[in-house]
Amino acid sequence: MLRLSSRLSTTTQVSPRLFLRLNSTTATSFKIPTTQKAVVFYENGGPLKYTTIPVPKPKPNEILINVKYSGVCHTDLHAWKGDWPLAVKLPLVGGHEGAGVVVAKGSEVKNFEIGDYAGIKWLNGSCMSCELCEKGFESNCEQADLSGYTHDGSFQQYATADAVQAAHIPKNVDLAEVAPILCAGVTVYKALKTADVKPGQWVAISGACGGLGSLAVQYAKAMGLRVVGIDGGDEKKKLFHSLGGDIFVDFTKTHSIVKDIQDVTNGGPHGVINVSVSELATSMSTEYVRPAGTVVLVGLPANSYVKSEVFSHVVKSINIKGSYVGNRADTREALDFFQRGLVKSPIKIVGLSELPMVYELMAQNKILGRYVLDTSK
Amino acid sequence: MLRLSSRLSTTTQVSPRLFLRLNSTTATSFKIPTTQKAVVFYENGGPLKYTTIPVPKPKPNEILINVKYSGVCHTDLHAWKGDWPLAVKLPLVGGHEGAGVVVAKGSEVKNFEIGDYAGIKWLNGSCMSCELCEKGFESNCEQADLSGYTHDGSFQQYATADAVQAAHIPKNVDLAEVAPILCAGVTVYKALKTADVKPGQWVAISGACGGLGSLAVQYAKAMGLRVVGIDGGDEKKKLFHSLGGDIFVDFTKTHSIVKDIQDVTNGGPHGVINVSVSELATSMSTEYVRPAGTVVLVGLPANSYVKSEVFSHVVKSINIKGSYVGNRADTREALDFFQRGLVKSPIKIVGLSELPMVYELMAQNKILGRYVLDTSK
Amino acid sequence: MLRLSSRLSTTTQVSPRLFLRLNSTTATSFKIPTTQKAVVFYENGGPLKYTTIPVPKPKPNEILINVKYSGVCHTDLHAWKGDWPLAVKLPLVGGHEGAGVVVAKGSEVKNFEIGDYAGIKWLNGSCMSCELCEKGFESNCEQADLSGYTHDGSFQQYATADAVQAAHIPKNVDLAEVAPILCAGVTVYKALKTADVKPGQWVAISGACGGLGSLAVQYAKAMGLRVVGIDGGDEKKKLFHSLGGDIFVDFTKTHSIVKDIQDVTNGGPHGVINVSVSELATSMSTEYVRPAGTVVLVGLPANSYVKSEVFSHVVKSINIKGSYVGNRADTREALDFFQRGLVKSPIKIVGLSELPMVYELMAQNKILGRYVLDTSK
Amino acid sequence: MLRLSSRLSTTTQVSPRLFLRLNSTTATSFKIPTTQKAVVFYENGGPLKYTTIPVPKPKPNEILINVKYSGVCHTDLHAWKGDWPLAVKLPLVGGHEGAGVVVAKGSEVKNFEIGDYAGIKWLNGSCMSCELCEKGFESNCEQADLSGYTHDGSFQQYATADAVQAAHIPKNVDLAEVAPILCAGVTVYKALKTADVKPGQWVAISGACGGLGSLAVQYAKAMGLRVVGIDGGDEKKKLFHSLGGDIFVDFTKTHSIVKDIQDVTNGGPHGVINVSVSELATSMSTEYVRPAGTVVLVGLPANSYVKSEVFSHVVKSINIKGSYVGNRADTREALDFFQRGLVKSPIKIVGLSELPMVYELMAQNKILGRYVLDTSK
Repeated sequence: MLRLSSRLSTTTQVSPRLFLRLNSTTATSFKIPTTQKAVVFYENGGPLKYTTIPVPKPKPNEILINVKYSGVCHTDLHAWKGDWPLAVKLPLVGGHEGAGVVVAKGSEVKNFEIGDYAGIKWLNGSCMSCELCEKGFESNCEQADLSGYTHDGSFQQYATADAVQAAHIPKNVDLAEVAPILCAGVTVYKALKTADVKPGQWVAISGACGGLGSLAVQYAKAMGLRVVGIDGGDEKKKLFHSLGGDIFVDFTKTHSIVKDIQDVTNGGPHGVINVSVSELATSMSTEYVRPAGTVVLVGLPANSYVKSEVFSHVVKSINIKGSYVGNRADTREALDFFQRGLVKSPIKIVGLSELPMVYELMAQNKILGRYVLDTSK
Repeated sequence: MLRLSSRLSTTTQVSPRLFLRLNSTTATSFKIPTTQKAVVFYENGGPLKYTTIPVPKPKPNEILINVKYSGVCHTDLHAWKGDWPLAVKLPLVGGHEGAGVVVAKGSEVKNFEIGDYAGIKWLNGSCMSCELCEKGFESNCEQADLSGYTHDGSFQQYATADAVQAAHIPKNVDLAEVAPILCAGVTVYKALKTADVKPGQWVAISGACGGLGSLAVQYAKAMGLRVVGIDGGDEKKKLFHSLGGDIFVDFTKTHSIVKDIQDVTNGGPHGVINVSVSELATSMSTEYVRPAGTVVLVGLPANSYVKSEVFSHVVKSINIKGSYVGNRADTREALDFFQRGLVKSPIKIVGLSELPMVYELMAQNKILGRYVLDTSK
Repeated sequence: MLRLSSRLSTTTQVSPRLFLRLNSTTATSFKIPTTQKAVVFYENGGPLKYTTIPVPKPKPNEILINVKYSGVCHTDLHAWKGDWPLAVKLPLVGGHEGAGVVVAKGSEVKNFEIGDYAGIKWLNGSCMSCELCEKGFESNCEQADLSGYTHDGSFQQYATADAVQAAHIPKNVDLAEVAPILCAGVTVYKALKTADVKPGQWVAISGACGGLGSLAVQYAKAMGLRVVGIDGGDEKKKLFHSLGGDIFVDFTKTHSIVKDIQDVTNGGPHGVINVSVSELATSMSTEYVRPAGTVVLVGLPANSYVKSEVFSHVVKSINIKGSYVGNRADTREALDFFQRGLVKSPIKIVGLSELPMVYELMAQNKILGRYVLDTSK
Repeated sequence: MLRLSSRLSTTTQVSPRLFLRLNSTTATSFKIPTTQKAVVFYENGGPLKYTTIPVPKPKPNEILINVKYSGVCHTDLHAWKGDWPLAVKLPLVGGHEGAGVVVAKGSEVKNFEIGDYAGIKWLNGSCMSCELCEKGFESNCEQADLSGYTHDGSFQQYATADAVQAAHIPKNVDLAEVAPILCAGVTVYKALKTADVKPGQWVAISGACGGLGSLAVQYAKAMGLRVVGIDGGDEKKKLFHSLGGDIFVDFTKTHSIVKDIQDVTNGGPHGVINVSVSELATSMSTEYVRPAGTVVLVGLPANSYVKSEVFSHVVKSINIKGSYVGNRADTREALDFFQRGLVKSPIKIVGLSELPMVYELMAQNKILGRYVLDTSK
């Protein structure tokens, strides 16, 4: 039976001055300051100022989240540099992996209560009404509003988010560890769904031991897949197996990646997740993928092309699909796998004020795993 | 290239006092009265009063539609009688097939402009954030707000609707004729999609010449399907063929509906749309459907059961699926077929004040096609 | 690259007198006797004779399998009794879970070599050319030839099978343990696929601790699903958890199975596998299944009906699907999970001559797990 | 009800000397000569001899077809020249669009009767037992046997075909006109299915007025799609509209194909069928396809690559899929559309002996529509 009759007959609006946790007997109330700490930049590539700015006010459809922790993603570096074909809002507070607590909400918000855990995602909001939004391709909406890009993001202590797109974070998780799941986790989980690989089939992760790859391996195993990982070096191999991966192909040691992968997977993996952004690695994946299989593009290198030989593409009937972050359902599901303990997120916590140092390391390609910022420092 | 960069950089809010049509050079402005005509009832089965009530105000996420025409659906009769397991709002303005013009909108509405054509659907709004909403099953949302049931509907001159769920009606269509598409049309179109029948395959419409059935036949043909219709009498047969139907099975003239349908479809239709609410007809459809085919339930009879013999159900590997109105994408698509002239909606127009007479005829099962109310009378 | 060029340029035909294992350097040769032991019956319900009969000869498209072990399935009992609506071949050698070794093959067989392990399935052969066969619904083919029903089955030492349908059994598995996978395993694996449940979602197994159910629990876990099992008693509960099941609902201890299952799954399971053949249990599953979820019928009780209330069926948009054994792909995949050690098959081995005793126990519902016959005794 | 009980209880084998049409009262008998006319070549690019050769004998799983007409496809030219990466059988009888009458059949053939119409397709036979065959990707089978490539084809009066793969041609069609459907028709129909475009959506046909394109336009319309055609010149435009196409984009007259196509389709077509083999046209299709849409590759140019810009590919979430002829189900369906008169096949008939002249014209790109050979001349 539908529990339609048990729903609230009126839309409950919680005044910002009297926060009540509806499902509990204890009232929850948050004191919201008028100013806060944030990292702001005023022009692309300009200084990253750790400074004090006003706390934003949520619109009727928004929630205000007290961000406790925020992951730092490569996209944040692109936003700051401004090297993507899409202009950012200026001045800008970056960040799109923010995990925190709902401290206020607009009059029309029905799906969050004050005190809930909530997450800031890359997609802050979308029109929900175009052909793409209607079919679950919200991230592809022409009117997409992007956290840390066209909407001030999670590198601040208080951030706003469209309540429909904000992530519901279960109460039993660690807010620092869950932060990278909000973008990196959702992205690789969605890519695995896009590959349309079924339990028991083979998936290859090209770049298996980087930040995205190491999450991809864990999600793949939790989804019942068999995983072949491609990366270089013995340390990576060890990491790969510790994550549950099945077979490791070391590109520094093989004469033919294509042949090796086809051999260990008995004809090629049914799906390939390209988290590596190497043009060569991506094109190679169109060669070793199994007939009728799917190559998924995930990374966003600038000025890069995927090339595929037409005759083989047709005779093998392969697919090359782009996968772009994930939608609301993907987010819910990716968080659910994390909350059940099936996916671990290896992080290093530093203070929000240290963001410039993190960008520095990132630009030098010196980061393993994910940096997470503590907004209180 | 994505036209992402061309989007409006700020959320445009149109004040109710100064309506501007953004995409045009001509400003559009509507004078909104404070009161209006409506048909209201105060208890289930009680008097249907044609009276004057206040014009509602849209919330930040709503649009206000000047309803020009509203279809009358069997569901409206159920709402008034109160014979469904779900309680209605009281007092209630019924109606959920309202076509009109947007005359005001809330501060957060981005997907409608003043002057646009818009439609009131059965689903007035939903949470957009539960597992069902996230996957396009908005109609099945536990918090579904239903026009003419839990939210005052289209049997009034001015009605509110959640902007995300309100239908976008193309400007080149007749507002009276399009009204029944908003529920009846969308419902049968969705049912045909649910049947998962491919172009060139057979679909059976059980009850092919009633209000829903005659729309179903036209949508099915426009979708490239072959249609066998089941209904009774020569007049129905003539109507069926005039709508483009392929083969008519007259249940008043056959010894075995099951055998006849299997013969003319070379083994049974791949899908069956049960718009008839007869329990016998529905159970029979589980017998004549093709192996691996799908029986779709659409009608909502009270206290009725579908029965299927387990052995055959398994050995033939058939499906029985429920299909409940349609979501935003279904609505857009159903309207598109209509706007292209591929589906005609045979209507009879009477004044809003005549609603009680229409219910009377409906209760007596004397209606062919669809009654549409002109809200100006 | 396609390895098309490396295929054999001529169709290799292996003469029955000179068996060569093509992929190996060692020749394999089998001496095939002219007579063998089998259990035969001449009329439905008549005596089950353990006797000597001729060894059959494979047709050009068949292989001859030296059956080492054969599972005993409830269907075999139905075949003997003759209580299903489909007549059996008479006299008949029953059995359709036979695991053994290929000892001869017809002139047109390209996909088996002498010495390979092969399995006799319920579907011995089909036309491969009708609309159903073309789409992978081979089991539903009107010309289906059924082992132990219309084609002498695996209760003999040497049995024939259409090479296209015969199962390829990996060399590293135990032939006795794999036998029940050929029907019971494939059937529940297919049912899980039919339920269309994704990794991380909930599936309920109604009858979780019987022969089919205990395999279903293991397959479901290997596919990344969360499993709620329904059965009765503490011993069953213990078994369920030892198989990896998540939550057990004991129908002997609950006031409302429907409520309990919906509670533990946060709204109902996304899919339900009815391996129990109880009419009440099956109908109840249409109540507790999640909105938009799928109820799968698997068992084949005689004269039984599934009943579903139409209003809820539509408003919840649920599906009821029949799932009938599995096709070639399902068989390959089910065997692959088994071969990887993800599914255990608890069996009890007795001699072929003891089949009547097994039927006796089966008729009295006294069997836990699966009996497997050793054809050498 | 399943008609399982009505199937033949024994496998009927028809002796070559006494042909009986089982479903009719009239016996059909064919006198099969021992020699026949054919066009043969002995080395790639060598002379095409119109000569007399023996009539082949069908294997137990084959039918012998008296080919009446055979289409000539570009692939036949490639087979003769030998410029594809896959070696042909030598000497070779080319041709893979042969339509004729079954005159003999092997002992195991159950799905054809003597006197039936049957068609020779590109895929003469496959293993039916590998992972690809099991899932309907028979054309991609590593052991695929190809008519007019690895198996003597339809440029002879009597040809053999694996009964499972041979096409069932309905009795009411013209054998000359149906010939090109067996490859060209099936190929474009399959490509349209691969594009996964739904009725009402837009598909673009790049190369809309060539041999494949003109069939693609008709199939697309019959499937309920809206079609934008891309080709050059007013004559082509006229042809396009005569076939039912919706909007024509003339590449000789536009400044931006990408912009034009996106404009007329309101954001880009949901699918694109590249029957043109131009590398530029194919890469352009990755630009104008709608977000979340699918680009299908069909043509088989040698040494050609498809290139797609990664950033857009991901952000627009597009797919590039290879589609390779069609399987048994696609063939049945493509023939069904043809038989219903929804697709016309414009042909020019010449004698079998004139094949060299047809190749000459083809090499010079001077052919519009399809040449069909009459094997009696």
